[in-house]
Amino acid sequence: MARCNALAACSELPGGLTRVFLSPEQRAANELVLAWMRDAGMQARMDAIGNVVGRYEADAPGAPCLMLGSHLDTVRDAGRYDGMLGVVSAIECVHALNSAQRRLPFAIEVAGFADEEGVRFGATLLGSRALAGTFDNALLRARDSDGMTLADALRTFGLDPARIGDAARKRDEILAYVELHIEQGPVLEAEQLAVGVVTAINGSTRFAIEIDGIAGHAGTVPMALRRDALAAASECVLTIEQRCSREPELVGTVGKLETLPGAINVIPGKARFTIDIRAPRADQRLTAVRDVLAEMQTICDRRGVTLNVNKIHEGNVASCAPWLMQQIGAAVVTEGIAVRQLPSGAGHDGMAMMALCDIGMLFVRCERGISHNPAEAVTAEDVETGTRVLLRFIENFQPEKQP
Amino acid sequence: MARCNALAACSELPGGLTRVFLSPEQRAANELVLAWMRDAGMQARMDAIGNVVGRYEADAPGAPCLMLGSHLDTVRDAGRYDGMLGVVSAIECVHALNSAQRRLPFAIEVAGFADEEGVRFGATLLGSRALAGTFDNALLRARDSDGMTLADALRTFGLDPARIGDAARKRDEILAYVELHIEQGPVLEAEQLAVGVVTAINGSTRFAIEIDGIAGHAGTVPMALRRDALAAASECVLTIEQRCSREPELVGTVGKLETLPGAINVIPGKARFTIDIRAPRADQRLTAVRDVLAEMQTICDRRGVTLNVNKIHEGNVASCAPWLMQQIGAAVVTEGIAVRQLPSGAGHDGMAMMALCDIGMLFVRCERGISHNPAEAVTAEDVETGTRVLLRFIENFQPEKQP
Repeated sequence: MARCNALAACSELPGGLTRVFLSPEQRAANELVLAWMRDAGMQARMDAIGNVVGRYEADAPGAPCLMLGSHLDTVRDAGRYDGMLGVVSAIECVHALNSAQRRLPFAIEVAGFADEEGVRFGATLLGSRALAGTFDNALLRARDSDGMTLADALRTFGLDPARIGDAARKRDEILAYVELHIEQGPVLEAEQLAVGVVTAINGSTRFAIEIDGIAGHAGTVPMALRRDALAAASECVLTIEQRCSREPELVGTVGKLETLPGAINVIPGKARFTIDIRAPRADQRLTAVRDVLAEMQTICDRRGVTLNVNKIHEGNVASCAPWLMQQIGAAVVTEGIAVRQLPSGAGHDGMAMMALCDIGMLFVRCERGISHNPAEAVTAEDVETGTRVLLRFIENFQPEKQP
Repeated sequence: MARCNALAACSELPGGLTRVFLSPEQRAANELVLAWMRDAGMQARMDAIGNVVGRYEADAPGAPCLMLGSHLDTVRDAGRYDGMLGVVSAIECVHALNSAQRRLPFAIEVAGFADEEGVRFGATLLGSRALAGTFDNALLRARDSDGMTLADALRTFGLDPARIGDAARKRDEILAYVELHIEQGPVLEAEQLAVGVVTAINGSTRFAIEIDGIAGHAGTVPMALRRDALAAASECVLTIEQRCSREPELVGTVGKLETLPGAINVIPGKARFTIDIRAPRADQRLTAVRDVLAEMQTICDRRGVTLNVNKIHEGNVASCAPWLMQQIGAAVVTEGIAVRQLPSGAGHDGMAMMALCDIGMLFVRCERGISHNPAEAVTAEDVETGTRVLLRFIENFQPEKQP
């Protein structure tokens, strides 16, 4: 908890926490983490994209590693646990092993990824994509809000954009990637569980919708003659809610809705809204999307308004490996906690890491599901439980293929 | 039709029509109307607030008058018939009587009101309120968007704010006020009728609503644990639509709705929207308002979100006098048209004039109900029909109390 507080002090936002990719604040945070890693008995370095990577050697030097970690960048006005908790808890586990002078048949590496949130350059997971070897060099031309390219930002940070490939790791070096992260949702709290085992990082489909009706005078057009775009949109909102409530792990959200012209005395001629549908299984998500689009078309046909659908994102599911879920679950049981498997609605570095190795995740309960917000909170007790589960998992880790 | 075009040329908006209270364009329009009135055999003058008033004397000079007319100001980027058509058609009727050298037992006055829309100073019906003797002098301090007070605007126009009272007419001078106006709605068009008899200018109740739910991550909060403010608002929109569709002349509109924080991946924590409910009878409107508020409370209670209701307007019904409706209806029948009685959803000068005398209105069909828009349209044939009905009404007019 103290280390999360120390990292939270590396912020460009006075009185709050904002730490973006390749910023002076990231440099400060990296220095802290490098020091903690070395203190825990690891060899630690910054890689070619600014990730911090520490290695705790196996009993046989040079053995493949179990990689742990999370990200060190934040959203704007962030909480202090999203990302950071996964890095400091992993270091804490290594510290425990090192204090007991215990070496395992595999190495442990801890990554503190430089960019997961994607705040500065729009594209997310830049740190883990570089480490996984899937970094797209076209992104070097992306610009931040001040007009600086990613390539120039790397140079300013003291890195060489031409050498990002050096951050890429080989598949045979990594046995698995396992991340501890706060849940960012209310499931574990509702079920009074300190931790949970992640099954998948949900895929998502996003749409921008526009419904065209006919604007009119709110006083003069009888109800039966209206082509009210908002009334149609409202039915769509409810049909999305209803359809996505039919299956426990499916979620559908209309986050933004606006009416045009948007005056108290004018029937809305247009309604624009967004849809975000996520599920842990692709077929589940795609079936829900198909149903929702069909139901919206029926609503709009019946009301004599026009439905315009624009798909703006389609992201696949990142499934956690069953063998890792099983071993993480066994560690949860060792701590006397019932195993709750749950999907992750939010994105995580595992989405990039799965290009390199199997992934697993352990969720720690957080307060009221609040995240991306200064009010983000976890209890020290839950952090201790989560870290102990992670340590049990490490101690009992059996690679799928023996190294 | 030519006169509506000529008036449309008195505009501050190049290529469109905008003519606001006490503007140079109003002066130009007033000059045109004064000339047309004199040409039709009327004595014509501008009154103390800038209304144009023409009088066609009775067979016995000084007799009370039947007052006709409408307004000469417009909304921004307006159509060319809203208001103006009622003035020019009334002048046309007087012209017909004058051409036939026909005097009636009552005088006819035609008013071209200087402000009905309220565009410049926010307050509406300033012209007819001054004539009806209900002008509130506190409004002289109201400012336009350039910061000029109404008092200064009157002075700039050549009028004396201290003398607005001079515009007020006495009750015994006016037998009735009857206005021809485009419907601004689609009822007559749907029923293939050129004209209709107005029963009342609807009263309206308006609310600003805020629903407070709980914002959350669109990917991480399961549907069953959400307190989605937009989903609740959507149910409210539909309950308003449903309740107001149950009675033919009741209308309810949610014209504006917005979500906060309003991001594609955030469950709306707040939804704000407006409600505008109108009906030709006060009990009908107030019962609908009561039902809608109760149903919204039920929705919000069930969903565990908070409903905040702020009433921002309560306007009473302005009922047309049955004896005038009967006589206008008789004139419609004379022209071989079925009498369609209908309420006016929009406001009109009659709302102010009823402080002085009984009011009646004749609606003329317009295209697709479009108004407050350059696309506002009427056919020359319907205008001829409407004007002939108005003339029949004048010729056969029987004051409720003999003058």
